[in-house]
Amino acid sequence: MDPEIVLIGAGNLATHLGKALHDSGLHVAQVYSRTEKSARPLAEAIEADPVTSLKQVMDCADLYLYAVKDDALPEVIRGISARAGVHAHTAGGVPMAVFEGARDQYGVFYPLQTFSKEKPVNFRAIPIFLEANTPSGLALLHEVAYRIADRAFDLDSQQRETLHVASVFACNFANHLWSIASDLLAEEQLPFDVLMPLIGESVSKLHTLPPAKAQTGPAARGDQNVIARHLEHLAAHPQWRELYRMITDLIREKMS
Amino acid sequence: MDPEIVLIGAGNLATHLGKALHDSGLHVAQVYSRTEKSARPLAEAIEADPVTSLKQVMDCADLYLYAVKDDALPEVIRGISARAGVHAHTAGGVPMAVFEGARDQYGVFYPLQTFSKEKPVNFRAIPIFLEANTPSGLALLHEVAYRIADRAFDLDSQQRETLHVASVFACNFANHLWSIASDLLAEEQLPFDVLMPLIGESVSKLHTLPPAKAQTGPAARGDQNVIARHLEHLAAHPQWRELYRMITDLIREKMS
Repeated sequence: MDPEIVLIGAGNLATHLGKALHDSGLHVAQVYSRTEKSARPLAEAIEADPVTSLKQVMDCADLYLYAVKDDALPEVIRGISARAGVHAHTAGGVPMAVFEGARDQYGVFYPLQTFSKEKPVNFRAIPIFLEANTPSGLALLHEVAYRIADRAFDLDSQQRETLHVASVFACNFANHLWSIASDLLAEEQLPFDVLMPLIGESVSKLHTLPPAKAQTGPAARGDQNVIARHLEHLAAHPQWRELYRMITDLIREKMS
Repeated sequence: MDPEIVLIGAGNLATHLGKALHDSGLHVAQVYSRTEKSARPLAEAIEADPVTSLKQVMDCADLYLYAVKDDALPEVIRGISARAGVHAHTAGGVPMAVFEGARDQYGVFYPLQTFSKEKPVNFRAIPIFLEANTPSGLALLHEVAYRIADRAFDLDSQQRETLHVASVFACNFANHLWSIASDLLAEEQLPFDVLMPLIGESVSKLHTLPPAKAQTGPAARGDQNVIARHLEHLAAHPQWRELYRMITDLIREKMS
């Protein structure tokens, strides 16, 4: 029999997650959000009951998925009296121990993606990272994960931190390099989007080559003339020059 | 009347460029490559004559486009006796002055993209950067650029270097960050492609937001606890820790 699910939250992640659960044929019994305005539309879209008080959250569901802001989590956990079922949060950066003492069976159900409310998302392509304090809890999280996505991984809190650090390099830091590129181009009155075809192709290559093999550019070629010219070119931006030097050295080491 | 074009080279760029010129209705009269084996297939595909000796390159074309390796360029320029017409190379990193003395009218015709032989490319989306030593030469490059692409920009050699530095940050260096992420994930036996949905979404956001506005993550939020944990987590990788610290500081400064 399918598990009965309660969804805590109605933000971007909760909305996409709720719809994916509903589309997979699973039953979300309740959607909690502090305001009727945010609880009702999601609840209606997925045939659940909207609730706006933590006290109304049912006692007897099989799975409680918490998709609220990281720092709201402890308070929301305290406000819900249900102890039965498996309680899992969806926050990559929060240890599963946040439930310790407050619940018997708990864990983490972490879909690695950034969600925008308006933009549809293909949940099946998103990897989900799971952790639980009991084997039966983990089995339930597995079952639900594979109903909505193609890949799920068991990951303890320490490993999840590695994943988080990796995603900071791969996404947040890569974005800052795009920001530097954008500032450099602005100095020549060039729009950032002239780089979009090249960025798109760099990402596209990752589907067929590991990044270390896909590496190109002056550092990968060991082109000292170009590197020296670029460092000189960056004289007015000592921090960017230092960053250029550091990443060039890392690429050189990686290639050797 | 349409200009008559000679294409020097039959590599990845020459192939995509030749096909784009031909598809736009322009006439490529000759394709030069050192070997019959590479000159003929491209020449046949675009209804041009294949030539395998620089001496066979015609004298009276309107435009000579050089799409050969950067370091082969000076020798190829010396080997061709044609002085009439406009001579433009396609190398982002080579100054236009490489033609000085050897030609009367010359310039640069630089499409900013990385090309793979097998993979089709939408040339119209690729920005083309132009430079010429005469107004009439620049006008001809403009005319040809807009036949095959939607955007062309005038850019002198100094500005083109800025563009090149920007593309090193945006593509080569971003790729190295993906390589670091890949190495971190490998330590937990996780495949790199778990990050692909997140990377794809980060790039997708750039179509609607400038990178500085799209910045997310612990540095953007100023989340000192997470930053401290991540730095500690990277203790075994001092260079990555230093890089983490440096980019985090740059993001903090940019947000403030």
